Amino acid sequence: MALPKQGLLLLTPGPLTTSASVKEAMLRDWGSRDEDFLRLTRTVRRTLIKLCGGEGSHVAVLLQGSGTFALEAMLGTMVAPSGKVLVAVNGAYGARMVTICRRIGRAVTAYETPEDTPADPGKIEQRLAADRAITHVAIVHCETTSGILNPVAEVAAAVAAQGRRLLIDSMSSFGALPLDAGQLAFEATASSANKCLQGVPGLAFVLCRESALRQSAGNAPSLSLDLYDQWQAMENNGQWRFTPPTHVVAALSRALEELAGEGGIDGRRRRYQRNCEVLIRGMTALGFRPILPARLQAPIIVTFAMPVQCGFDFEAFYRGLKVRGYVIYPGKLTRMNTFRIGCIGDVDETDIAGALEAIRETLEEMRMDLTVAPRAELPATKHTA
Amino acid sequence: MALPKQGLLLLTPGPLTTSASVKEAMLRDWGSRDEDFLRLTRTVRRTLIKLCGGEGSHVAVLLQGSGTFALEAMLGTMVAPSGKVLVAVNGAYGARMVTICRRIGRAVTAYETPEDTPADPGKIEQRLAADRAITHVAIVHCETTSGILNPVAEVAAAVAAQGRRLLIDSMSSFGALPLDAGQLAFEATASSANKCLQGVPGLAFVLCRESALRQSAGNAPSLSLDLYDQWQAMENNGQWRFTPPTHVVAALSRALEELAGEGGIDGRRRRYQRNCEVLIRGMTALGFRPILPARLQAPIIVTFAMPVQCGFDFEAFYRGLKVRGYVIYPGKLTRMNTFRIGCIGDVDETDIAGALEAIRETLEEMRMDLTVAPRAELPATKHTA
Repeated sequence: MALPKQGLLLLTPGPLTTSASVKEAMLRDWGSRDEDFLRLTRTVRRTLIKLCGGEGSHVAVLLQGSGTFALEAMLGTMVAPSGKVLVAVNGAYGARMVTICRRIGRAVTAYETPEDTPADPGKIEQRLAADRAITHVAIVHCETTSGILNPVAEVAAAVAAQGRRLLIDSMSSFGALPLDAGQLAFEATASSANKCLQGVPGLAFVLCRESALRQSAGNAPSLSLDLYDQWQAMENNGQWRFTPPTHVVAALSRALEELAGEGGIDGRRRRYQRNCEVLIRGMTALGFRPILPARLQAPIIVTFAMPVQCGFDFEAFYRGLKVRGYVIYPGKLTRMNTFRIGCIGDVDETDIAGALEAIRETLEEMRMDLTVAPRAELPATKHTA
Repeated sequence: MALPKQGLLLLTPGPLTTSASVKEAMLRDWGSRDEDFLRLTRTVRRTLIKLCGGEGSHVAVLLQGSGTFALEAMLGTMVAPSGKVLVAVNGAYGARMVTICRRIGRAVTAYETPEDTPADPGKIEQRLAADRAITHVAIVHCETTSGILNPVAEVAAAVAAQGRRLLIDSMSSFGALPLDAGQLAFEATASSANKCLQGVPGLAFVLCRESALRQSAGNAPSLSLDLYDQWQAMENNGQWRFTPPTHVVAALSRALEELAGEGGIDGRRRRYQRNCEVLIRGMTALGFRPILPARLQAPIIVTFAMPVQCGFDFEAFYRGLKVRGYVIYPGKLTRMNTFRIGCIGDVDETDIAGALEAIRETLEEMRMDLTVAPRAELPATKHTA
C-alpha cells in the first residue's frame, strides 16, 4: 500500500493538489505596497490576459476571496442596476449565479436544462429574441456539478447575434480549456487561482473587456466586490485597494510559470485529458459508471453513479481511499446519488493509476465486487435503470 | 550592514512579518471538505472566541478575503436594512465604514474627531440620545491611520447606556489589545488573520453575539458577504459555503498556537509595547518625532512626522532601508506629511534595534542629520510649528 508522492493527493474540483514549488513560493512575506509585490501583481495580471488572448481588449482584475466572490463582483459590476441577466443553468454553479443576481438586485431569468444536458445555443438565441430587456447572458463553461462542458463558443455567437453581452463562469476550466477573447466574444469571465491554474485558494479574478469595465463605474452594490474600483486602483498605482493575500498571489505567480513550462493551456489540457481517460477506463473496469457520455465530459472532474450493490458504504469507501492517501469528492447532483473524482491539479496518469490501485484495494477490503451485477431482488434505483 | 534574520522584515500595519513556522504550515494541501480541514476550522473558530472571552455568548464566523470584506459583511449582516449606524471617524478606517454603509444602503451618520483625537464617549452618548433612529455605533479600536487608540470600553458603556449596539473594527488590535466580551458589551467585532494574530493575509473573521446573529437572517445585501449564511453552513456541517483559503487557515491555526505559546494577548502586548518603546526612543534620538503623545499611542504602529529638513527624500530613505532588509510604510494622514513604522508581527526589540541601526546608516548615507534644527530660512510646515 504505497502512499502518493506528496502526502494526501486531492482528486477534487479544488482546492486541489499543488506542486511543492508552488507551496514553497509562500515561504516569504511580502510588503503589500512594496515594489516587489506590485511587480508580482503586474506580472500575474498580464499573464492572465495573455492566457485568454485578451491583449488590447481585456484587463485582469484580481480579487481577494473565493471564486464566488469574483462571480458576485462580475455580476454586480458588469451588469448595471437596470440590466437583466439570462443565466443558463444545468447545475449548482449556474443556479448560484441566479441566487447572486436575486440577492444583489439584478433582474434575472433562468434557462434550465437537466444536469446531464448542455445549454442549447439556439434556445438561448430564442430567449434573447423574445425578451429585449435581457442585457447579459451568463453561463458556466464547465459545470463541476456533473463535469459537463457547455458549448460556450456557440453560445457566444448566439449572444453576439442578438447584440447582448456574455459573462462566463470559467472557474473550473480556465487554464486547461481554451477561452480566447479573439475568437469568442465575452464581456467578462470569472475564475480562480486554485483550479486549473494550480495555485492555492484565496484569490480569484475577472477578465473584463476594458471598454465595458470603463462604463461600469458606480454599478456595484458592494465596496469590497466593486471590480471597477479595484481595477482603477490597480491601474493608478499598481496597488490593491485592500490587503491582498500576498502569499497566495506569490503562489499563483509561480503556478503560472509552471503552466508556461508545461506548454500552456494546450499542454495542460492534454495531461488532464490523459488523466480523465485513464480514470474512466480504470473505473469502468472496476465496475463504476460515469454518468456523462464521453462527448459531454470535460477533462476536469468525472461524476460516477453511486454503486447500487447492497452494502456499498460511501463513507467506508472514502475512508479507505483516504488512509491510502487519496481524497475524492462527494456528489452534487440533485437527482442522482453520485460521487466525483477530479482530473486536475499537480496530478499525472501515474497518480491516477495509484488512485485506481487504492480504489481496487479498498473495494477488496470492503469485499465489494462491482463488476458483478446487483442481485435481481434488489430494487434498482431510477438512474441505473 | 547586517540583513535581518529572515530576509525582508516588514515593519508595517500588515501584511507583516510572520514566523517561519507559520509559513511552513502552508506546505501541504488540504481538501476543503475533508475532516482534517474541518477540524482545523473548528479549532480556529473556538480559539478566536476564547481570545475575546465570548464563550457562551459569541460565535466566530470566518470569511475569505481582506479585513474590509469582513467589515462590509459585519455592517451588512448585523445592521438591518431599516437600521442606522453612527460611525466614529478619526482616520481612514472609520471613514471607510461610512463609505461601506453608504454603498450597501445602510443609513449612516459620522461623528468626526481630528486624526490625533480619540472619540469622546460622552459625545457619542449625546448623539445617541438626540437621534433615536441610530441602532448601531461603529468604531475602530486602533486607527492605524495614525496609530491612535480609541476608548472602546468607555464607548461600549455609553452605547449600552443608550440601549444601542456596538460594532468594533479591531483589525489592527485583535490579539494584542484586550477586547473581552464579558467586560465590554459588543455586538460584533471584525478582524483579520494577518495583523496581531501574525497569520498571513487572505482570511478575516467576525465575532458576533449569537443572539444578534440569529436574528440577522436575510439582512445581507450580498451572498458572498452574508455572515448569517456563512455561520449557518459552519454550524450545520462544519464546512465553508465557498472554497476557503485552506493554506491561509492552516497558517492562522499555527499562528494561534504561537500566540498561546507567547502567553496569549498579554504576552503579545508586552512584546509589542517593548518594540514600540524601543522604536520611539531610538527614533527620537535620531531626530524623528512621533505625532501622538504616549497616552494615545497604541503599541501597534507609530506615525512619525516627515522631517522638514531640506532635501529629506522619503523615497531614498525607503530604498535605503529596504536594501538593508527593512520595509516601512507610507503615511496616511490627510493633514500632515508622515510615514509609519509598525511594532507588530514576528518582530522583537532586537529586530527594532536592527531597524534603528539601518535607519542611522541610511541617514548617514543621505547625509542627513535630523538632530540639527532645520535652517531658519526654510518655511516650517503647519504640523511642525
